[in-house]
Amino acid sequence: MPNPTAAMIVIGDELLSGRTRDSNMFHLAGELTKSGFDLKEVRIVGDDQNAIMSAVNALREAYDQVFTSGGIGPTHDDITADSIAAAFGLPIDVREDARAVLEAHCRRLGIEMNASRLRMARVPDEAVLIENPVSAAPGFTLGNVHVLAGVPSIFEAMVASVLSTLAGGAPMLSETVRVGLPEGEIAGPLGRIAEVYPELSIGSYPFLLHGRFGVNLVVRGTDRDLLGSAVSDLHAAFPNATE
Amino acid sequence: MPNPTAAMIVIGDELLSGRTRDSNMFHLAGELTKSGFDLKEVRIVGDDQNAIMSAVNALREAYDQVFTSGGIGPTHDDITADSIAAAFGLPIDVREDARAVLEAHCRRLGIEMNASRLRMARVPDEAVLIENPVSAAPGFTLGNVHVLAGVPSIFEAMVASVLSTLAGGAPMLSETVRVGLPEGEIAGPLGRIAEVYPELSIGSYPFLLHGRFGVNLVVRGTDRDLLGSAVSDLHAAFPNATE
Repeated sequence: MPNPTAAMIVIGDELLSGRTRDSNMFHLAGELTKSGFDLKEVRIVGDDQNAIMSAVNALREAYDQVFTSGGIGPTHDDITADSIAAAFGLPIDVREDARAVLEAHCRRLGIEMNASRLRMARVPDEAVLIENPVSAAPGFTLGNVHVLAGVPSIFEAMVASVLSTLAGGAPMLSETVRVGLPEGEIAGPLGRIAEVYPELSIGSYPFLLHGRFGVNLVVRGTDRDLLGSAVSDLHAAFPNATE
Repeated sequence: MPNPTAAMIVIGDELLSGRTRDSNMFHLAGELTKSGFDLKEVRIVGDDQNAIMSAVNALREAYDQVFTSGGIGPTHDDITADSIAAAFGLPIDVREDARAVLEAHCRRLGIEMNASRLRMARVPDEAVLIENPVSAAPGFTLGNVHVLAGVPSIFEAMVASVLSTLAGGAPMLSETVRVGLPEGEIAGPLGRIAEVYPELSIGSYPFLLHGRFGVNLVVRGTDRDLLGSAVSDLHAAFPNATE
């Protein structure tokens, strides 16, 4: 049985302007692989309601689970919760359960509950809150869409919380064989080995180091024996070049 | 007049598995901003012809320029050129101009021109080659789609080559005001300042450092005077907290 599929939507103008280098996608990709989900697509969109809505509606139809990152804070550019509600055609307003979470957080820190902070308690009807152990902004799950914070430490805590509630597939195993030859030298034998193992994915990732080309061959699959056999074949095919 | 828009498609299973952290998107985003293009959307897809085709066809309709990265080498998993040809409904085969580039490259390096390397000369009809000063794989431009290599040093050289041929808009200017307060404290005044400057984009990016929240307020726009005025207003609104 194939593993369940996943997609991600990273929301934020700062990634599209080149100001910030995303780390949430890299984190989620690794965690999904460990949990046996097959991440199939990531979209990065700006702080724009139409862009968020169309990404959410396309991906929640196409994949089993969808994760979003960013835009759930208290400022004017935090429009994710409203955009998700619009995508689902559901009402959104301050919800009492979210308000209670925020109020407890403010009491704990001795800070005031103002109108801006209350905006973070806007959660679509039918959504289930995701606990946020770090800040006040609650994430939420609506159908198969998990709406998480953008700040990396909070995002990572919410990912752990959501993944503990989902049933994944077989963990994807992976082995890398590094070859000190350019791709053009190895492509023929490599392609023939890939054909022998249709159950595995064998990727070829060239690099350029100190002016010389090499390749990382990455073998991925859920069957440990098959994986070991393919790795042996690669070492045998390029005997003096593998590390 | 608004700046021309752009989108990017990053192609490669290694990004979706969490094995590799992308750097090409971060590089392109910064270069587009400098050249006056407005990057609106990025999609990351695997080495899968249908996924590549549907991303290419959606984005080339929606945006002025589209850049792809990855999948133009000689190995079995390099399927970008064929997928782009299929997306445009154009024939693809070994082209004499691309073969000449490859042969010159092989002669220069004293390496053999084999069947795998020849595969890199497969370029769709009507495409214009993009020079690749580093390796043998030619990139190409087809309509408004620019197909570039995935290895970062080669990708970056190709980006420079393509951008030198395109007419961008006004360079996007940006200033960051760092505030040592949590977003919930500043969201009210910040929102009112954002309303005063509809021509600018004012983004609020919270961070958590040594257990304390702060915010980077990023003001972006093409008008230097307006930008300076908004930055002054932010310093005035949060007088003891800005850096």
